Amino acid sequence: MEKSLVSRLFIHASCTWLLTCLVVLSIQGQTKSPRELGIMIGVLPTGASNSITDVSGVKVGHTTVLKGDSVRTGVTAILPHSGNIFQQKVPAAVFAGNGFGKLAGSTQLTELGNLETPIILTNTLSVPTAMDAVIDYILALPGNENVQSVNAVVGETNDGYLNDIRGRHVKKEDVLAAIHGASEQRPLEGSVGAGTGTVCFGFKGGIGTASRQLPVHLGGYSIGVLVQTNFGGVLQVNGLQVGKHLGKFEYSNQLLNNVDGSCMIIVATDAPLDSRNLERLAKRAFMGLAKTGGIASNGSGDYVISFSTASQVRIPFRVDTALHSMALVPNDLMSPLFMAAIEATEEAIINSLFAAETMVGKAGRKIEALPVDRILPLLHPDD
Amino acid sequence: MEKSLVSRLFIHASCTWLLTCLVVLSIQGQTKSPRELGIMIGVLPTGASNSITDVSGVKVGHTTVLKGDSVRTGVTAILPHSGNIFQQKVPAAVFAGNGFGKLAGSTQLTELGNLETPIILTNTLSVPTAMDAVIDYILALPGNENVQSVNAVVGETNDGYLNDIRGRHVKKEDVLAAIHGASEQRPLEGSVGAGTGTVCFGFKGGIGTASRQLPVHLGGYSIGVLVQTNFGGVLQVNGLQVGKHLGKFEYSNQLLNNVDGSCMIIVATDAPLDSRNLERLAKRAFMGLAKTGGIASNGSGDYVISFSTASQVRIPFRVDTALHSMALVPNDLMSPLFMAAIEATEEAIINSLFAAETMVGKAGRKIEALPVDRILPLLHPDD
Amino acid sequence: MEKSLVSRLFIHASCTWLLTCLVVLSIQGQTKSPRELGIMIGVLPTGASNSITDVSGVKVGHTTVLKGDSVRTGVTAILPHSGNIFQQKVPAAVFAGNGFGKLAGSTQLTELGNLETPIILTNTLSVPTAMDAVIDYILALPGNENVQSVNAVVGETNDGYLNDIRGRHVKKEDVLAAIHGASEQRPLEGSVGAGTGTVCFGFKGGIGTASRQLPVHLGGYSIGVLVQTNFGGVLQVNGLQVGKHLGKFEYSNQLLNNVDGSCMIIVATDAPLDSRNLERLAKRAFMGLAKTGGIASNGSGDYVISFSTASQVRIPFRVDTALHSMALVPNDLMSPLFMAAIEATEEAIINSLFAAETMVGKAGRKIEALPVDRILPLLHPDD
Amino acid sequence: MEKSLVSRLFIHASCTWLLTCLVVLSIQGQTKSPRELGIMIGVLPTGASNSITDVSGVKVGHTTVLKGDSVRTGVTAILPHSGNIFQQKVPAAVFAGNGFGKLAGSTQLTELGNLETPIILTNTLSVPTAMDAVIDYILALPGNENVQSVNAVVGETNDGYLNDIRGRHVKKEDVLAAIHGASEQRPLEGSVGAGTGTVCFGFKGGIGTASRQLPVHLGGYSIGVLVQTNFGGVLQVNGLQVGKHLGKFEYSNQLLNNVDGSCMIIVATDAPLDSRNLERLAKRAFMGLAKTGGIASNGSGDYVISFSTASQVRIPFRVDTALHSMALVPNDLMSPLFMAAIEATEEAIINSLFAAETMVGKAGRKIEALPVDRILPLLHPDD
Repeated sequence: MEKSLVSRLFIHASCTWLLTCLVVLSIQGQTKSPRELGIMIGVLPTGASNSITDVSGVKVGHTTVLKGDSVRTGVTAILPHSGNIFQQKVPAAVFAGNGFGKLAGSTQLTELGNLETPIILTNTLSVPTAMDAVIDYILALPGNENVQSVNAVVGETNDGYLNDIRGRHVKKEDVLAAIHGASEQRPLEGSVGAGTGTVCFGFKGGIGTASRQLPVHLGGYSIGVLVQTNFGGVLQVNGLQVGKHLGKFEYSNQLLNNVDGSCMIIVATDAPLDSRNLERLAKRAFMGLAKTGGIASNGSGDYVISFSTASQVRIPFRVDTALHSMALVPNDLMSPLFMAAIEATEEAIINSLFAAETMVGKAGRKIEALPVDRILPLLHPDD
Repeated sequence: MEKSLVSRLFIHASCTWLLTCLVVLSIQGQTKSPRELGIMIGVLPTGASNSITDVSGVKVGHTTVLKGDSVRTGVTAILPHSGNIFQQKVPAAVFAGNGFGKLAGSTQLTELGNLETPIILTNTLSVPTAMDAVIDYILALPGNENVQSVNAVVGETNDGYLNDIRGRHVKKEDVLAAIHGASEQRPLEGSVGAGTGTVCFGFKGGIGTASRQLPVHLGGYSIGVLVQTNFGGVLQVNGLQVGKHLGKFEYSNQLLNNVDGSCMIIVATDAPLDSRNLERLAKRAFMGLAKTGGIASNGSGDYVISFSTASQVRIPFRVDTALHSMALVPNDLMSPLFMAAIEATEEAIINSLFAAETMVGKAGRKIEALPVDRILPLLHPDD
Repeated sequence: MEKSLVSRLFIHASCTWLLTCLVVLSIQGQTKSPRELGIMIGVLPTGASNSITDVSGVKVGHTTVLKGDSVRTGVTAILPHSGNIFQQKVPAAVFAGNGFGKLAGSTQLTELGNLETPIILTNTLSVPTAMDAVIDYILALPGNENVQSVNAVVGETNDGYLNDIRGRHVKKEDVLAAIHGASEQRPLEGSVGAGTGTVCFGFKGGIGTASRQLPVHLGGYSIGVLVQTNFGGVLQVNGLQVGKHLGKFEYSNQLLNNVDGSCMIIVATDAPLDSRNLERLAKRAFMGLAKTGGIASNGSGDYVISFSTASQVRIPFRVDTALHSMALVPNDLMSPLFMAAIEATEEAIINSLFAAETMVGKAGRKIEALPVDRILPLLHPDD
Repeated sequence: MEKSLVSRLFIHASCTWLLTCLVVLSIQGQTKSPRELGIMIGVLPTGASNSITDVSGVKVGHTTVLKGDSVRTGVTAILPHSGNIFQQKVPAAVFAGNGFGKLAGSTQLTELGNLETPIILTNTLSVPTAMDAVIDYILALPGNENVQSVNAVVGETNDGYLNDIRGRHVKKEDVLAAIHGASEQRPLEGSVGAGTGTVCFGFKGGIGTASRQLPVHLGGYSIGVLVQTNFGGVLQVNGLQVGKHLGKFEYSNQLLNNVDGSCMIIVATDAPLDSRNLERLAKRAFMGLAKTGGIASNGSGDYVISFSTASQVRIPFRVDTALHSMALVPNDLMSPLFMAAIEATEEAIINSLFAAETMVGKAGRKIEALPVDRILPLLHPDD
């Protein structure tokens, strides 16, 4: 990148930041995002709402399941587009940073290079329920009357420290509600949906999202990321050694009474990519996780699922031509997309921590929110 | 292998064959196995019952779900040992010959190199139900009161040509019945359990099993295979071009009204192997499938799951020592095990076809049993 | 496949067979190919010359290095097209059936999904020499004056039983001669080029080739295979248990004084495929190896390299557009290509054995040709 | 990790730091390492010399090839132990962060799970020469008189911006000199050996090394890393946004006249690990690269090779027992090793940048050293 591009990017980024502040403040009011607090992760500009829904057509829905003293769980659904996703599959890929997780649907997704259902995130022991609900959803869609095979893609993290996970409190209706309630608006972050009961770096984790918008001369594509954060390490916020400063870090959630952690990362882009380059993109999202201080501990199921929403690369269920025409981003032009995926993932994780609030759950256990007030004096918003 | 070994193997094989005939005839009586009919696949001797249960400790259970005109499905459970499998995990691996399938649990199994639940086989749309039942089973086992994470391993094939698969007629109780009813006896073959509604090479498929017993100087290990056959190609029976002779073959089950096929292959051995060499073993089972004329068509989810039952390589849930001692078969001694896996898989698939009987199912559809009478005159039992 | 297609295929196959006989007999005269002897492997028709060069544009060249008593080695070069392959790369994939081999170039080929050099086959210890020659070749091509990075793809098998492999008798000039001498004519088979010193199933192995031509309604594509055979198992010729009949089989070449075997398989097609479907195609070639009785023993490096020659999927070195347009065969139409790859690989291996002649090499060791006369009476050319 | 451990770690780290300062200053005098300058990466203590040679038995040798105006290249050799590595192989694994590179030997290393030669690093076009030299070395070792197969492991980065890479100036003698000159002393860093001509983040890169020493209660193991840095991104030094501050970053070295970059990372440990857990460890090293701001751009071949030096897990060439006994670190105890690999990799990369000095090379091109003076004021050595 030439120096002049750097300057242009910074100007663009600044404008985007101001816009983001205005929009977000008017909506939420209460907690501020890292970016509002001057924490500018990376060098590329964000999309309009700094969210996975900046990728046109992507929808997100949450069902938060909070009951009594010990139910702290939920569901988050990500829809690649608003049509019949089974009839109009999207190119997709999976990268397992650390495969200690129950991700459903990965082998078929990888073999065929496509995604044919919404992606559902939930807790570890509710994966079967979510899969069953996805099958319900797909079988019931108009046009799918003869469908006999559905590859439900469901990821999870283990919220069993705060949540009565053995009770399997997520029901099929909760999953269907997340799917049907999905919208193209910026999704809520923090302790909502599949992030309701998660713990990250010893603080309250949850759902986070962020995006990047490439300059036109680098392709002009949008890349959006959504994460469900439930993992350990030594927290870094835009490079700042927060975990070290606060003396709070650990090798993994294993120390928390054998709770397996995990980080699910969903990457969406409107760049027309095939599954091979989507897998490469997914690997870069894992690099973004590394930059927050995550260590992909033994017990942490860290998966990335990436997909392309570009309409011309969709894969029809019934192929009626001998050849499938498409136009793809070549290898040589992938690097800006890689950088965007790293940055958006890092920021989405940090966003999840800033948004999540202190939660008390099962057995009176309490997980504190990230102490933003103690961190802010340490931060040097680097310009 | 020296020539003298060949002779010894043949003598051993012959004795085993006679013994097998006597045992099997006294149990079944009606249909004859290929081996009883003189079809001697491979050069290695079988185990005592030519079944996966020749591997000491392995148990198999079936639940056959047959109702009215259109329910033709079921469940088959394979247990690596009789203990608490979650507390005493076994080394394991997965190989995806063709990943168009909904196999659950593969990424964690691969990452950690072990299996912590029974393996369940069922139909495509009942995978979530089976997973949920496996979680029920594991959570309820004495000693698992604090378990919060279960990696259920469930494979499937699509029996939707004969079975009302969209009705999802397999219930959790069916799965639990297969697990609890599992025994160390030779499992039934053909249209039972998860093989109730399957179709293979255009004939009625189902469950098949076979085994090999290595001579002592090659390690003396047992290798057992169980298959759920539901795939296409050009059938070969011990090399004989049956599909070609009968003019019956196809590229895949896709032609049958978009039913996705699949072949699930389970390989058990008492050889102490780690996951790396178990994955290599799994690849050889896929070679056995090739020898039957299978082509791993686009729509066929062909997976192999392999595991070792050797007690000294078990992996305790709670590791209480800094190092895990074991003694493993070295790479250089793997080849006889590879040959055994190929032979047992080929024979298990052929066994499934010989055992399965004509079935009528959904919408009055009928799939004929393999016409053994037409094949026998073509066979040249090669000695 | 409908029955009518079967009949049409057989008629087509018969015509092709007659044509092949006439062409081949007029060229060689001496040894007959399996197909000339009535051994009709598979159900699909062959291409015009039953060779990898039936795929338009593919060229093959051999350099046979035979000196004195103990030099029995050589080089085989496969060129995807006649242009500057570095400037016009082709989509490609690698499948490692068993990775005990020194295949060079696989990780970049897999990451980028393309091939940018001729493929060279040689002996195990001459891989570096062949790579260096490939770099020479690429750097010297007009238009490549500024090229600073070359991913040479070189495969090998170990001919050290008959050949003084430690002497590294292959020179750069031998490699360049194979490249520059490559032609679109049917390549010689047997003990030539990289197959000069190889041993297969205990008999003399070598180079073999075969092809399939899909009927128009299945895509009309050509698939060609070339193999370098140097592996063990229990030989089957079109299903016939030759190894068993002759009492000649072994687990691997390891028994031959620690010589590592290997089978290199090259698959070319004019079907426009991306690297993902080329990898799937490569896996099917490994199934073809299985059908000959190969067991992929521990010491056998069994790799498949596949590529597409379709001009519209070529990947220019310098991308000058933001998107790369192409039209690809969709997943659903891959199965006929899979079957073709299996059949052509099986036949190419058998062809190598029928073509290779008895050879005496290092230390007076002698490897007999396959005793075709003893096999013919056992053969029952089906149909 | 409990808070008390944190304190203990910090005291340990401080002591190690002082010791390191004393040792290093007395040796070099001129340039200071990041740690000497107060840049304390991570929370775990370093080994005695903060180098890969802290792992007992590991040896490193460099040959720097500097000639005239345009030869700026070299060789670095890493030996896992001082014995005959072919006869006493070590467990090993490879992870391809981005496979755009010419790493030789990866498929066999992965299939068999072991390393049987020294690891050589050099420039892209000299890989064949280095392989040939490794074969020379192995064939000539006493005891290897009958060896006929050698899996040379050679990695590379492309130094073609400063070096006349097309001239292939590395000779076999240079490679053999690096092997034979290897020592257990802390290796030189910066523009030496295989790092002579490399460029990293737009500054002069080179060889770097670092290590971690786990506390006894976490296993007490040593982990050492050596890197050859030649890649791009937005440099971060222990979190500090140096690239952003200096306005110097780029997507990849591609912009430098089509030079492909790369980062080779070698991870050694005395922890007894099998290849599966070594692969997991390798993945974590890639996370360390991410923390420096690397983006694994399209043209960057970023590979990690990891191996265990523990004597009890060595794999003899000739296995003379039916079982290979060993005692391995179980999955559950891997997380501290993961953290150590991340930290040591991050520090090794930063060390390479601090050590490398401005270099002028081919066509008068000049690459500046990292401007440490401009960075120091920005640094806030935390704690």
